[in-house]
Amino acid sequence: MKKIIEKEFAIDYLNKYGSQMTIGNGYLGIRGALEEDYPEQVRGMYVAGIYNRPSGSTSSELVNLPDVTRFHLTLDGEVFSMLTGTIHSYERYLDMNTGELIRKITWENSAHKKYQINFRRFVSKVAKHLIAAKLEVTPLTGDMKVKVRTGIDGQQTNFGTQQLKELSLRIFDEERMVGEYQTIESKQQIVVATKVNAKGAFTAKNRQLMTAVEQNVAANETFTLEKISSVNTSLSKTDEVLPNTTYLELKKETDLAWEKFWKQTGVEIKSTNTFDQFALDFASYHLEIMTPKDDIRCSVGAKGLTGEGYKGHVFWDTEIFILPFFLYNQPKIAKQLLQYRYLHLKEAQEKALENGYKGALYPWESAFSGVEETPEFAAINIRTGTRQKVASAISEHHLVADIAFAVCEYAAATKDTAFMMNCGAEMLLETAEFWISRTTNRNGRLEILDVIGPDEYTEHIDNNAYTNYMAYFNVKKAMEWNKENQPFQKRAEKFLANLYLPVANESGLIPQDDTFLQKDWINLDKYKANQGTQGILLDYSRQEVNELQILKQADLVMLFYLLPATFETKVMKRNLDYYEKRTIHDSSLSKAIHAIVENRIGDRKQAYQFFQEACLIDLGTEPHSSDDGLHAAALGAIWLAVIFGFAGIDTREELLQITPNLPDAWQSLTFEFVWKGERIGFKITPKMLELSKTTTSVLELIINGEKHSFTDKLTINFEQKDVSL
Amino acid sequence: MKKIIEKEFAIDYLNKYGSQMTIGNGYLGIRGALEEDYPEQVRGMYVAGIYNRPSGSTSSELVNLPDVTRFHLTLDGEVFSMLTGTIHSYERYLDMNTGELIRKITWENSAHKKYQINFRRFVSKVAKHLIAAKLEVTPLTGDMKVKVRTGIDGQQTNFGTQQLKELSLRIFDEERMVGEYQTIESKQQIVVATKVNAKGAFTAKNRQLMTAVEQNVAANETFTLEKISSVNTSLSKTDEVLPNTTYLELKKETDLAWEKFWKQTGVEIKSTNTFDQFALDFASYHLEIMTPKDDIRCSVGAKGLTGEGYKGHVFWDTEIFILPFFLYNQPKIAKQLLQYRYLHLKEAQEKALENGYKGALYPWESAFSGVEETPEFAAINIRTGTRQKVASAISEHHLVADIAFAVCEYAAATKDTAFMMNCGAEMLLETAEFWISRTTNRNGRLEILDVIGPDEYTEHIDNNAYTNYMAYFNVKKAMEWNKENQPFQKRAEKFLANLYLPVANESGLIPQDDTFLQKDWINLDKYKANQGTQGILLDYSRQEVNELQILKQADLVMLFYLLPATFETKVMKRNLDYYEKRTIHDSSLSKAIHAIVENRIGDRKQAYQFFQEACLIDLGTEPHSSDDGLHAAALGAIWLAVIFGFAGIDTREELLQITPNLPDAWQSLTFEFVWKGERIGFKITPKMLELSKTTTSVLELIINGEKHSFTDKLTINFEQKDVSL
Repeated sequence: MKKIIEKEFAIDYLNKYGSQMTIGNGYLGIRGALEEDYPEQVRGMYVAGIYNRPSGSTSSELVNLPDVTRFHLTLDGEVFSMLTGTIHSYERYLDMNTGELIRKITWENSAHKKYQINFRRFVSKVAKHLIAAKLEVTPLTGDMKVKVRTGIDGQQTNFGTQQLKELSLRIFDEERMVGEYQTIESKQQIVVATKVNAKGAFTAKNRQLMTAVEQNVAANETFTLEKISSVNTSLSKTDEVLPNTTYLELKKETDLAWEKFWKQTGVEIKSTNTFDQFALDFASYHLEIMTPKDDIRCSVGAKGLTGEGYKGHVFWDTEIFILPFFLYNQPKIAKQLLQYRYLHLKEAQEKALENGYKGALYPWESAFSGVEETPEFAAINIRTGTRQKVASAISEHHLVADIAFAVCEYAAATKDTAFMMNCGAEMLLETAEFWISRTTNRNGRLEILDVIGPDEYTEHIDNNAYTNYMAYFNVKKAMEWNKENQPFQKRAEKFLANLYLPVANESGLIPQDDTFLQKDWINLDKYKANQGTQGILLDYSRQEVNELQILKQADLVMLFYLLPATFETKVMKRNLDYYEKRTIHDSSLSKAIHAIVENRIGDRKQAYQFFQEACLIDLGTEPHSSDDGLHAAALGAIWLAVIFGFAGIDTREELLQITPNLPDAWQSLTFEFVWKGERIGFKITPKMLELSKTTTSVLELIINGEKHSFTDKLTINFEQKDVSL
Repeated sequence: MKKIIEKEFAIDYLNKYGSQMTIGNGYLGIRGALEEDYPEQVRGMYVAGIYNRPSGSTSSELVNLPDVTRFHLTLDGEVFSMLTGTIHSYERYLDMNTGELIRKITWENSAHKKYQINFRRFVSKVAKHLIAAKLEVTPLTGDMKVKVRTGIDGQQTNFGTQQLKELSLRIFDEERMVGEYQTIESKQQIVVATKVNAKGAFTAKNRQLMTAVEQNVAANETFTLEKISSVNTSLSKTDEVLPNTTYLELKKETDLAWEKFWKQTGVEIKSTNTFDQFALDFASYHLEIMTPKDDIRCSVGAKGLTGEGYKGHVFWDTEIFILPFFLYNQPKIAKQLLQYRYLHLKEAQEKALENGYKGALYPWESAFSGVEETPEFAAINIRTGTRQKVASAISEHHLVADIAFAVCEYAAATKDTAFMMNCGAEMLLETAEFWISRTTNRNGRLEILDVIGPDEYTEHIDNNAYTNYMAYFNVKKAMEWNKENQPFQKRAEKFLANLYLPVANESGLIPQDDTFLQKDWINLDKYKANQGTQGILLDYSRQEVNELQILKQADLVMLFYLLPATFETKVMKRNLDYYEKRTIHDSSLSKAIHAIVENRIGDRKQAYQFFQEACLIDLGTEPHSSDDGLHAAALGAIWLAVIFGFAGIDTREELLQITPNLPDAWQSLTFEFVWKGERIGFKITPKMLELSKTTTSVLELIINGEKHSFTDKLTINFEQKDVSL
């Protein structure tokens, strides 16, 4: 039962459910706003790659497109709203099995007439431009006069920022309504078309093209209105703007596509807490609908296509948190995400040059153009009137190594040497060249100064452990893929030989940066209790936070996750304990990674605790935590925690390593995993690991530290136990 | 009891009442949107002269400014909305005596707690930048936790068209919230400031600067929140953005100002239909708040400051329908409206030149810049995709004579020779020169070809009676005020001698234009029944309408109103009857003018019928007739109908003429009227006219066709009778 269910209609949760109940297909995303309007309800439709830079702004924004989801419903003269009349029964859910959003209401109006009102909608998973919606109204007490107004609403803005110019509003064949628009600055064309399967009266006014359908319906008869819409843009034009098709026809093919998706990508968790399965399905569903499938010009924004947070920009989140889900399920999609970066290698090289470096310095935030899109200034400080320069674009350079890491992960997992020859090797070389140029020689030691690590609460620090280790990894891997480039090999060897990599001190602590261990500790319990709200910044200035031992997320823990073989388990444990005490987890990226590392060091219980908390980032009770959209990376991290945490898969070495460690609440974990071109079936219980595949090749791998090999099936029995260091 | 009352809360009427309940002072107007949001409710604040031309558009638009009227009210955790819970009592009215908008609700929430909630607001009539609002909430059943979120909302757009860039959002002294904005194209600065009299938590996000005030309140205690706001612009800056003042302090001085207004400008009608008095008060109130008082750079838009219809543009409506209300009550304001035209004489001369004419051709629609603002194309025909060129800017030239007419009317009523010497004479000269250059010589007869008269259903016609007669008047008056200009005198004499002025044919009909009388008649009953909706255009194309005897308004009747002495009564009657049968009255300017002319020819009953219908243009039951704003000219016409119709005043000749003719339902009509610098008190009953004034000069005037004179008081007894021709 894969359903995202709205337990009861509550105005305060509208935008949270609006984000959660987004439907989409990677090409477009439509927020789960209700068909009728409510105050403060945010309606939104977004197409991957359609950005616009408002006049006077330094950043492009993901454009909120003209709406086709609104239905203005009048029943016997009374406007339908769930705020009025009486609701006798109410059901609303997104069926993740089929991508269909369904709402059923038994409503009594103020004149005590009863109606059954059902709304449905979905986005085609086959014909990516198409949106289908259906309305059914049945009068339960006597006849009914129904009036529905719907169409294309071009009044949508990004919270008051207009992104689109209206070029024309048309109707064709007394049926199709077509709105043509252009983004004001980026000059992208948008064509929204729609039609309903009933004659109506058309009107065009104030950027709205509407039809109004009126009918008289006998008691207990059902009035049905289908609306098929399409969105085409200059990025992806189809010959046929709006095909002749029905809700059912579109749904049949979409159902099959979703069935295939779940069959291959679904992860089955048997747990005493059914929420575990739900959270993972929720993550998988959203990862699937947020990620472009056939356009290397688009990547995944920090909120996917679920809202306008972070202006729809692409961060390192994509490579480190989202890409693995595809890499080990649908590796072609992972490749596309890397091709997006390769496409913009030139812009990254230009950014490096502009900043006095060599190689490729990818923009901290990017959108369609591939240039730096990080806002130059943060939001105004309303008390001082000043705007702080955003330091990320200038100093948060670890993203370069993160992209290189993803290239290597892709290469290791796929054996796609063509990609590596055509793109990957060059990306590794250029990112490595960046790191070589990024160092400062201090008494023969190469240091990386003035950076921001993943932990953004410490800014302008020197020798951030995460950054230095990842830079080392980047350059080392670049050498492997660029063996003939002798001048580079020399530069790289020198870099690797002299780069400072912080190691554990006598207390066993690896310093996160040159100064962190010297800073004062403060009790963070109050802020940990309100994780994710950045409440610390209400009590301390950014400068003060920077001078205390306060972490948004722990860089060492992130590093342990990515490069586990580099560190001894006891070092990991010591540092995990130390840094976690100093971590608020204000970053949504934090918790699931802690879960993985806790699991690896053997604390299954703590790992599960962190996992469960990570699942609440978008699914918790706080009503406004996801108003601006879902936390895409955090969704990816839920999947990471299951596969790389509890299933205990480690893909960092040549042979696949598996060290399962299921939570006590879990009876089994079943999934498929694509490794070097083969789809491997996993079934894990607390006492057994079953692997299967359909090819005839022999696969070598390491299970619980021991080497094994198999052709079609392998069963290993073991005893899960808590590791206690 | 001057109250605009919302009888009951009905979602379908929200925007009609929103327009009707606009508060303002001529500098700014704020729609009567409810404090809380409702779907499709249009919130709007407009400042005279603040226009912006959106990218790609040929027209400036009156800018919908950041909002300060919204209050998001949460009572014991439940968001207040009149759609939810139970409303035990409801009262909402705009007190025109004081300009205060008041709403009182006894509301029971879904948990059966009761509250008394009162909202009040007004715009200062003294400090024009200031807006005061007040919220009172009393829990009637137990304690209450109240939360109010309010501030400055910069998400406002003109139906999705963004006009403003946000420059900064600030708070000062933990109290004042200040938003600075700039119109995107016209580069006007807007500073909106506000504060509430309670400590709150400030937030700034998505173009909103808000404070959230929370309090616990004991049962039957009243929570009161006052909000004082200001709007300053680059057109009118004050030193003090937001003074320290209270709702009560501001209200006291505003009450006095309104009291003075009503004392001088109020018209008292004793009628068996109390609606007559109400409609006239409604008109007077709105004329007063829509008209700038101290800035000759601004005039009055077609919807005043009540909405976005006609983009806030200025038409001939101002001079012909609105200016008289001020001319005969507050002549200084009338002068300012003419100064607005004088200020833009240059642009009018340029437009004439560009179109191949001489003199001054005023733009058909104007805004702040004084250049032509008529949209180049009409709205797209959604079926054909074509956009018709708007012909008004090219051919609707009568406006030139209308402005000249207003100059003459001003001169006659005020004896303000200084204005005439400095501005008026030149305006008459330049407008006359336009007409002289506008004619075509056909066999020695001067004709004015290819124009549109006030009746816009007949386009591109020759020798429109209204246009030709008004042009004649224009040139004739220009001669009187430019006697020394010999070359002009010669040109003008030739023009007057040869201009074709259509006269009655053997059937007594004056042709509205060269072809109208030859066109086919059709029965218009169906369309008359839906006056004001332009329903005819659903059944006939514009071209077809143009080729039939179909009038939006009757040009001859308009002409009879403006130049009564030019036509014999029986000619007027014959033509009135003829043309009225061919008039749909789709123009809101039509009915009241018919009332005046009917009255002049003596049909008091028909006049009253038309008057009553004219009063319903904004006050009728059609829910959406005034959504885009009130019909400013139609409001002016209500006053015209009373003063120039029923009171029977005629100011067209040197001596004031009075021929009262009250509707049978009226027992008396009392008002003041400013004539040549003297304020004259009028009291009219069906049997008596009483005049009074306080100066010692002797006033000569003509009453019921007989000359009279008086110093301080005059009483004339007469017998009203129906004239039957």
